[in-house]
Amino acid sequence: MKAVVRRSASLIDTDVPEVTAGEGQVLVKTLACGICGSDLHALHHLEHMIEMGLRAGAADTFDLSKDLVMGHEFCGELLDHGPGTTGRFKAGTRVVSTPYAIGPKGPELVGYSTRFPGGFGERMVLTEALLLEVPNGLSAEHAAMTEPMAVGAHAVGSADLSGRPVTLVTGCGPVGLAVIAALKRRGVGPIIASDYVASRRALAERMGADIVIDPAQSSPHGRWEEFDVPATLAEFGMAAMGGRDMRQPVIFECVGVPGMLQALLEQAPPMSQVIVVGVCAEDDRILPVLGISKQMRFQFVFAYSPAEFADTLGDIAEGRIEVAPLLSGTVGRSGVAQAFEDLGHPSGLAKIIVTPGVA
Amino acid sequence: MKAVVRRSASLIDTDVPEVTAGEGQVLVKTLACGICGSDLHALHHLEHMIEMGLRAGAADTFDLSKDLVMGHEFCGELLDHGPGTTGRFKAGTRVVSTPYAIGPKGPELVGYSTRFPGGFGERMVLTEALLLEVPNGLSAEHAAMTEPMAVGAHAVGSADLSGRPVTLVTGCGPVGLAVIAALKRRGVGPIIASDYVASRRALAERMGADIVIDPAQSSPHGRWEEFDVPATLAEFGMAAMGGRDMRQPVIFECVGVPGMLQALLEQAPPMSQVIVVGVCAEDDRILPVLGISKQMRFQFVFAYSPAEFADTLGDIAEGRIEVAPLLSGTVGRSGVAQAFEDLGHPSGLAKIIVTPGVA
Repeated sequence: MKAVVRRSASLIDTDVPEVTAGEGQVLVKTLACGICGSDLHALHHLEHMIEMGLRAGAADTFDLSKDLVMGHEFCGELLDHGPGTTGRFKAGTRVVSTPYAIGPKGPELVGYSTRFPGGFGERMVLTEALLLEVPNGLSAEHAAMTEPMAVGAHAVGSADLSGRPVTLVTGCGPVGLAVIAALKRRGVGPIIASDYVASRRALAERMGADIVIDPAQSSPHGRWEEFDVPATLAEFGMAAMGGRDMRQPVIFECVGVPGMLQALLEQAPPMSQVIVVGVCAEDDRILPVLGISKQMRFQFVFAYSPAEFADTLGDIAEGRIEVAPLLSGTVGRSGVAQAFEDLGHPSGLAKIIVTPGVA
Repeated sequence: MKAVVRRSASLIDTDVPEVTAGEGQVLVKTLACGICGSDLHALHHLEHMIEMGLRAGAADTFDLSKDLVMGHEFCGELLDHGPGTTGRFKAGTRVVSTPYAIGPKGPELVGYSTRFPGGFGERMVLTEALLLEVPNGLSAEHAAMTEPMAVGAHAVGSADLSGRPVTLVTGCGPVGLAVIAALKRRGVGPIIASDYVASRRALAERMGADIVIDPAQSSPHGRWEEFDVPATLAEFGMAAMGGRDMRQPVIFECVGVPGMLQALLEQAPPMSQVIVVGVCAEDDRILPVLGISKQMRFQFVFAYSPAEFADTLGDIAEGRIEVAPLLSGTVGRSGVAQAFEDLGHPSGLAKIIVTPGVA
């Protein structure tokens, strides 16, 4: 079959071995698959990513002598059933799914495994038990947005929202925008969003941010007090001694470069909950005593639960989350390399969808 | 009055100006006051501690030209009432209290302020509203243990204990021992505790640890699987895909030196909640992507709430928390400098109590 593969930090449109549905698996035709920030990272740093995964205790799912077919934000059409399946969806059904499969050493990520090619190829093998039917009328491009938007739902779902939260989203790339959408969906606000890029701030407003801030112009931490969040430890202490119940800051870190966590330790208000969604894969420096003094919480999050994924599909299908503003373009296989190049620079581009059936 | 003061990194038994109860304050005679690990740190590193406090947004409560009377783990006897007090406790009542007072720039810590001398002096000024009466029969030394034991209650109270937790306490100094006592008090277990020092491990067992580990002999992370905690990401993924509900690891980091957080990022199981109780006041290095992959939570904690403090006093008074094993000795003012010296080396010494009325 045709697929765009990663080979030695290049993307090549080529022929790859056909895939076959194994036990409990189905074969699908890929209709649409989004390009994720982690794909951009993997193109140049796959070996490092694998090393990090192994250090974190993940199963060894890569054969580096083989080409890798990435793509884990997909929508497909069911073609055929493997052995031991129930056939609960018939051929022709359009489906999405969390990108998990069982390999010989444990769970594998479809699109980050050389055993389970991802959505930048014409066909994929998926786990039948994880399939969700795409509701009637939802386009494949919109359905493929379930995965990145579910990341936002999970980040918000991982926060303790019981303290009448005032929220800040640092970084308005696709991850930050998904978080903003999920906050808006749940009616949590105000939502303050910060990004250096004007077109991303515009998207943040479009997705529901109440205040957008250019950190080159003013600190994203300059607005807490107007929403009744104690900005300093001294203010927090006075409020606590006075029995005054103030609002709690919840910060979604969606940048993922060294220095972001320490900047929050230095600048965020006491009692801040920081949900770390941006992936920093480099060594980072922090001064823990600041976290102690401020009693901050850092919750690192990844992916989503099956329920969050299913809820997100419903939210998109029912219009409770609008994904159209995030769809920046569609490319066939021949356009993938350029799309990776374009997405590598911060810009107003959010999500580019690959249609691997198109040359 | 007589007090042991910190002057240029030395401890001196000397005369200091008498203190007077201001608005809403009471004057107490100090009966007993424990020596805290942060006092040991402040003796040599007060300037750095102040700098960290200011960076965290604390009120500026130090006049470095003045001697500092430390001591914030105290029990006192009420002597006199200042203006604007209610007189709800009469003179002669034995009291404990959270060590907070209101200064001109915000909340101050009694014992870490040059305006509010602490419990290493004969008398202190406390906030009337924060006083708790020591229940009949509880000795001043045991009552003075309320503060350090409340640190354990707060650490445990800050954890999400809903996931049938299996707990690990790293470091069995006074903070780790207080955490173990609080876990035991709440019936949370098993409790695994690790420390390099045999006498501390013995104290950990005495306070309720179910398993003690010498990390020089074996990893504290070697026991998770026998308690149904998935030790690796691959195991966690298999359990999650299989819908198997496993137990959640909750780790109390009570060492507070650089490298502890990264060791947990590397070695702790996925989904670990880390409650950071040990204070690391130096730069530290972490690799955030490991936290992302494992979805770990780091909750930094400090002190306690008034309710946790009051509950801890009741627990000690009613024998639900036994503090006797932690009382390693009592010294008068002349013994304080040597006690600091002795406590500066890891050993089976837990808490030394100062009786500042005794020369």
